[in-house]
Amino acid sequence: MTTAMKPAQEADSARIAIVGGGLAGSLLALALARQGHGVDLYERRPDPRRQSAGAGRSINLGLSKRGMQGLRMVGLLDDVLARSVVMSGRVIHAPDGNTRYQAYGKDAGEVLHSIDRNELNHLLLDRAQQHPQVRLHFEHRLVHADKAARQLEFDTPDGNVVVQPLWVAGADGAFSAMRRELQHGERADYHQEYLEWGYKELTLAARPDGSSVIELTALHVWPRSHCLFVSHPNLDGSHTLTLFLPFEGEESFATVRTPDQVSALFAKYFPDLLPLLPGLLDQWERHPTGSLITTRTAPWRFGDWAVLLGDACHAVYPFYGQGMNSAFEDCCVLMAALADHPKDLAAAFTRYEQQRRPHTDVLAELSKANFVELRQKVQSPWFIARKRLDLALNRLWPRSWLPLYTMIAHSTMPYGEALERSHRQERLLRTALAGIAALCCAGLAYAIGVKP
Amino acid sequence: MTTAMKPAQEADSARIAIVGGGLAGSLLALALARQGHGVDLYERRPDPRRQSAGAGRSINLGLSKRGMQGLRMVGLLDDVLARSVVMSGRVIHAPDGNTRYQAYGKDAGEVLHSIDRNELNHLLLDRAQQHPQVRLHFEHRLVHADKAARQLEFDTPDGNVVVQPLWVAGADGAFSAMRRELQHGERADYHQEYLEWGYKELTLAARPDGSSVIELTALHVWPRSHCLFVSHPNLDGSHTLTLFLPFEGEESFATVRTPDQVSALFAKYFPDLLPLLPGLLDQWERHPTGSLITTRTAPWRFGDWAVLLGDACHAVYPFYGQGMNSAFEDCCVLMAALADHPKDLAAAFTRYEQQRRPHTDVLAELSKANFVELRQKVQSPWFIARKRLDLALNRLWPRSWLPLYTMIAHSTMPYGEALERSHRQERLLRTALAGIAALCCAGLAYAIGVKP
Repeated sequence: MTTAMKPAQEADSARIAIVGGGLAGSLLALALARQGHGVDLYERRPDPRRQSAGAGRSINLGLSKRGMQGLRMVGLLDDVLARSVVMSGRVIHAPDGNTRYQAYGKDAGEVLHSIDRNELNHLLLDRAQQHPQVRLHFEHRLVHADKAARQLEFDTPDGNVVVQPLWVAGADGAFSAMRRELQHGERADYHQEYLEWGYKELTLAARPDGSSVIELTALHVWPRSHCLFVSHPNLDGSHTLTLFLPFEGEESFATVRTPDQVSALFAKYFPDLLPLLPGLLDQWERHPTGSLITTRTAPWRFGDWAVLLGDACHAVYPFYGQGMNSAFEDCCVLMAALADHPKDLAAAFTRYEQQRRPHTDVLAELSKANFVELRQKVQSPWFIARKRLDLALNRLWPRSWLPLYTMIAHSTMPYGEALERSHRQERLLRTALAGIAALCCAGLAYAIGVKP
Repeated sequence: MTTAMKPAQEADSARIAIVGGGLAGSLLALALARQGHGVDLYERRPDPRRQSAGAGRSINLGLSKRGMQGLRMVGLLDDVLARSVVMSGRVIHAPDGNTRYQAYGKDAGEVLHSIDRNELNHLLLDRAQQHPQVRLHFEHRLVHADKAARQLEFDTPDGNVVVQPLWVAGADGAFSAMRRELQHGERADYHQEYLEWGYKELTLAARPDGSSVIELTALHVWPRSHCLFVSHPNLDGSHTLTLFLPFEGEESFATVRTPDQVSALFAKYFPDLLPLLPGLLDQWERHPTGSLITTRTAPWRFGDWAVLLGDACHAVYPFYGQGMNSAFEDCCVLMAALADHPKDLAAAFTRYEQQRRPHTDVLAELSKANFVELRQKVQSPWFIARKRLDLALNRLWPRSWLPLYTMIAHSTMPYGEALERSHRQERLLRTALAGIAALCCAGLAYAIGVKP
């Protein structure tokens, strides 16, 4: 490293550094600033608000209860909801073109909100920038953290910069440089695995009058065992379609490349989408293929100086729609831990990790399992009957009987507790059904005249 | 990077590069050279043969069948056996000082050979250096691999060096730089986890006449639920003791620091060792505490240019004594795959990974499970009875009934097949025992006069 180094910024050792200006980082910056802390937000990339709209990396998000709680914490929930489209349920598109609707919950309170990832990020950055306690630093790439000296070193267009913050939050995504630095020389556990499927985004344009060509206020799913389409609605009547397809093998991103191959794939699996996507071949060509990663790691913290949140410590597959929601919930749990331990940062970070990590580990597994559900189970009559029974029981006993999906998407119950409770309900249901079956047999025996 | 770069070495694109001059790397260098290939071996550290004996990092190895096969491949088995001590079984030291002997196998062919890691490494490097086809390069630290240009860049005391080998084998250990470079930009799965226990090595000196103070030709184990001692014999009558102890908590490396604390730990758990270790406190102070890691990863290869072996792609805990043995077996499987595909390196590397990775994944799990066995089960009467029954059945049907330990240590059956076969035998044994129990009950019923 021969580039000139500036001396450490003066008087900033009372400010908090956040590495990563994505959703989690900018939300945390706002939350800390509102508590009176000075915050420096460092982002590797240029200011995204000055970029032309990036193609293909605009995956839409389904905002649910946990994420809403985070936005409410910084007073932004209403602004975000005004920019989002309600999704009250899933529309399942069968191969023959028939559709079936599955509500997300028992009433209008249990819905998701579709929001454009970039738009949400821009809003959060705008509000952070407006706050007098927050300073934004773009094109600052973390190259080194000196844990003993409590210093961060950034590579910037003007040379390397060293800062010495009070403490650091790493919110720099699945390939987090802050995680690498935090865990350097520690006995850290780390697990990463890629899905063997990738994804490509396509836009389903609105009609000239701005109306949507498919039901607007729903998530649409085209489940096939070899591929999967999911679509999120946008305010302008368009939908962001996401095709999930294996990377390798027959009918994969490796073999579907030419216009003929793309058309053949759609004709075979999504004939109903073909007439709605006149620019399909052009979009296919232009839009990149993305990959999906799950990560788990420990520790998430270093003493009283550094802590991780969001994808930096638990990237999950998007199939439960909980990536952003869980990252925002991290912010809430971290802020609560800081409030509980105002004079002991190490204790606050420890409490945050203890309260949070077991649950995000569960979320990783749920997100993997939901990939199978979205592709295969949503069409099975058993699965549909079970979902209906779950919702019916939930209407009968709205406090006692909570479907797993309801607990994950429409509550802030910790993920692990939600899963455990779902297992308890499952056992109860099995016992009850066995009892009912026994009663039916006894009744039948009585009816046909068998004396006990 | 501002250091001057030398131009790529000329005319060496027909030579094979091996990154890492440890056990696996130097064995592979010899194996390839004996087939007529030119080999450049690059090692990050200085030549270990010129160092004074490193303290504390000399963990002894138990050479078993798979490792012997690797050494036989390069004609070194007899030389190594001459430098090793036979271990025909385990001596278990109970807390009360009593000992019990468990044979490793049914006869003198089923034993392990204790060898000093450094001595073995020096021997392999000596032989590699003597081979006209091998060039050794010490103090060459891999900083970058350009997969497209098929180039490796090393940081050396004389500046950076770029080479362009025919292909590369990465044998640079659990924190492999070659793995990092090979997988950069790929969808690579990677898992690492540390054991919550660390280890410290101590030397149990021989008597002045060179005789051993405990039985020489055995592995000794002091199993305790809170800690564990294992010892390997050396040719000079000394033993290398390895203490495994948790890093944190009551009675851990964190709390056992002062001479009093060390003495108290030994007085409580290893009173029989205290009089044998007069220099204990001094050794405790001088010898470092090591940590243990398990890693699993994929892919192990890149096209027809790079492949990984040994700890670089599958580091395991040492509790099954298979770390070096499995790394040497990698060399054998890789050499066989190269022989099967003499003109298609990509096919050879693919075949090697397919044949090998599922089995080293199994080894990782077996090595974790054996940690529990060594600490707790070896003392249980059930476990001892089961081991005896296993060996008795093995003597009765030496080809049909093979205890799992026998298959792992004394055969070259792939690890996964060994585990599956052990599960089959387990099921058979349970069925047979249930049958015998039923017969006994029937006999007893008959004897006491119950008529069927």
